[in-house]
Amino acid sequence: MKTRAAVAFEAKKPLEIVEVDLEGPKAGEVLVEIKATGICHTDAYTLDGLDSEGLFPSILGHEGCGIVREVGPGVTGLKEGDHVIPLYTPECRQCKSCLSQKTNLCTAIRATQGKGVMPDGTSRFSYKGQTIYHYMGCSTFSNYTVLPEIALAKIRDDAPFDTTCYIGCGVTTGVGAVVNTAKIEPGANVVVFGLGGIGLNVVQGAKMVGANRIVGVDLNNDKKEWGEKFGMTAFVNPKEIDGDIVSHLVEMLDGGADYTFDCTGNTTVMRQALEACHRGWGVSVVIGVAEAGKEISTRPFQLVTGREWKGTAFGGARGRTDVPKIVDWYMDGKIQIDPMITHRLDLEDINTGFDLMHEGKSIRAVVVY
Amino acid sequence: MKTRAAVAFEAKKPLEIVEVDLEGPKAGEVLVEIKATGICHTDAYTLDGLDSEGLFPSILGHEGCGIVREVGPGVTGLKEGDHVIPLYTPECRQCKSCLSQKTNLCTAIRATQGKGVMPDGTSRFSYKGQTIYHYMGCSTFSNYTVLPEIALAKIRDDAPFDTTCYIGCGVTTGVGAVVNTAKIEPGANVVVFGLGGIGLNVVQGAKMVGANRIVGVDLNNDKKEWGEKFGMTAFVNPKEIDGDIVSHLVEMLDGGADYTFDCTGNTTVMRQALEACHRGWGVSVVIGVAEAGKEISTRPFQLVTGREWKGTAFGGARGRTDVPKIVDWYMDGKIQIDPMITHRLDLEDINTGFDLMHEGKSIRAVVVY
Repeated sequence: MKTRAAVAFEAKKPLEIVEVDLEGPKAGEVLVEIKATGICHTDAYTLDGLDSEGLFPSILGHEGCGIVREVGPGVTGLKEGDHVIPLYTPECRQCKSCLSQKTNLCTAIRATQGKGVMPDGTSRFSYKGQTIYHYMGCSTFSNYTVLPEIALAKIRDDAPFDTTCYIGCGVTTGVGAVVNTAKIEPGANVVVFGLGGIGLNVVQGAKMVGANRIVGVDLNNDKKEWGEKFGMTAFVNPKEIDGDIVSHLVEMLDGGADYTFDCTGNTTVMRQALEACHRGWGVSVVIGVAEAGKEISTRPFQLVTGREWKGTAFGGARGRTDVPKIVDWYMDGKIQIDPMITHRLDLEDINTGFDLMHEGKSIRAVVVY
Repeated sequence: MKTRAAVAFEAKKPLEIVEVDLEGPKAGEVLVEIKATGICHTDAYTLDGLDSEGLFPSILGHEGCGIVREVGPGVTGLKEGDHVIPLYTPECRQCKSCLSQKTNLCTAIRATQGKGVMPDGTSRFSYKGQTIYHYMGCSTFSNYTVLPEIALAKIRDDAPFDTTCYIGCGVTTGVGAVVNTAKIEPGANVVVFGLGGIGLNVVQGAKMVGANRIVGVDLNNDKKEWGEKFGMTAFVNPKEIDGDIVSHLVEMLDGGADYTFDCTGNTTVMRQALEACHRGWGVSVVIGVAEAGKEISTRPFQLVTGREWKGTAFGGARGRTDVPKIVDWYMDGKIQIDPMITHRLDLEDINTGFDLMHEGKSIRAVVVY
């Protein structure tokens, strides 16, 4: 079949909207009509050529929502018409990781996903006879795409596509970091470094589970209002305080935070986030993705005196199990997504969505097919 | 009263055995006759002048066992004749840390303890009219010493002093790191870096809780036999393998360890310990104390893909609550101490005990009064 898609033919070039060829689903695979997709920093990171494993030409996009249109042989858990969210972190429920019950980092199809192909080693996309690679196993910048069954979360039918798509990455990453990785308890004090889309979702996750003080840290004062919309109780701009941010936060929170989150990807901030934790029990979670080659450091004394340093990918969420729950939380009003979707675009305008993100003008821009 | 003690009059000088003056216990304090004390690297660290907060003259020693000889006003939990282990990490059960139920790092008397005095701000020790400082709130290198009630664990009467004293630091630090900090589950694979006294106690703690593979890593092949005595299942000498130790361990353990422990104090080894953890769930615990100014580093990717970095002090043990349990484990044969006590010395020979430790000839040398 033919489908419209925004293709990344080369790094550092705008996406091109063309009609590509898409093969139907093979065994264990599913054809999905994407109804909406967010544009995420990770897409930009790859498009800008910063990901050393980035492949071109490819169809980017990994934060989508859509409807099953056809299932391949052997698919038993999904049927035509099911509403689904594509999962760049699949959940096979069979591999060592899934069976460990300790991590969401399923390894079933990691090798082929990293090579831009389906588990059988081939791509479903082509353009004028040339192979186009899949991206993060999702390629939601195509109106139709093919995914393995284990990489699709079945969700309720009444969730609107143009907001629910954000659960495919940003919402789950932020809210999941609170719920699955940090496992914050009611009454805890929390500091969130970086109030972009991920940070705001951490803020609202912390609010949902009953955190006490939720302090947002950002260099941009415009973020204060944004943080407050989602439950932030105090805002700190490190440029506008006397002394260093760590001492400031430790004093503000009577010894430090119970939980801190780095949502910046800056390794200096990651260290501050650890050191702003309370002696004895503070836990710091790295969410941001750092530049290649950058390292985090601290004195081991910080750990020996009871601080804990951990990280999270896809919010520690097991995609097929946890993502539908997050959709319920959204539909039940426990978390908000609507105010975060600041821009809705046609596929033709997808490059504008990247510009808005780079300029810091959008929290989330969404392409609606 | 008068008591014999080994006094550290100056940094980098041998201890001198003299009779010092000891005031009796004040309110909330207890006079203890020390029956035996271990000599620990931390004593040597201070004596060597490496601890920037070290005070002289002082009476070192923090790993003891003895008998209560007198209680001061208001002491209700201990009486004359009780067998006790002094606690450099007290347990007041009243402070924010104790009440958090998340840490053993009681802060009730931290400030005065760090200044070498009792909670009222004065020392009980003097020599020829000159104040002698307490050390880590314990000063077990004195035959008689005074401690706050909250810094004494009451233990059973039938535990022999010359082995049980080791529970005052080394045993609890190693076994506690397994039980309280890492909370290892049966069947886990464990790597222990450094097979000194702490490392061997981690090994036997891991064995006690049912670990599967317990790999010891040390540059000294003599440690192989020592590790095996306490439950180590494999030994690796990093100098005798091809390639780097991290890849070696990751391959050996099919993806890495479930838990690793640094018992070396070397920050390069601390990084190796983290990176030898299994993707998705491996936990690395820093036990060793690093040189002043040294830092640990890693790529944040290590955390984002599910490894966790934490630390432990006094094995995460709440002294009054947990130390008596460890004494029971020893008396019940769940853990061994006797083979670790390689040397018994009179107080007069205490400097020989430091020499044995520096030369790597002792696992633990104990002074028996």
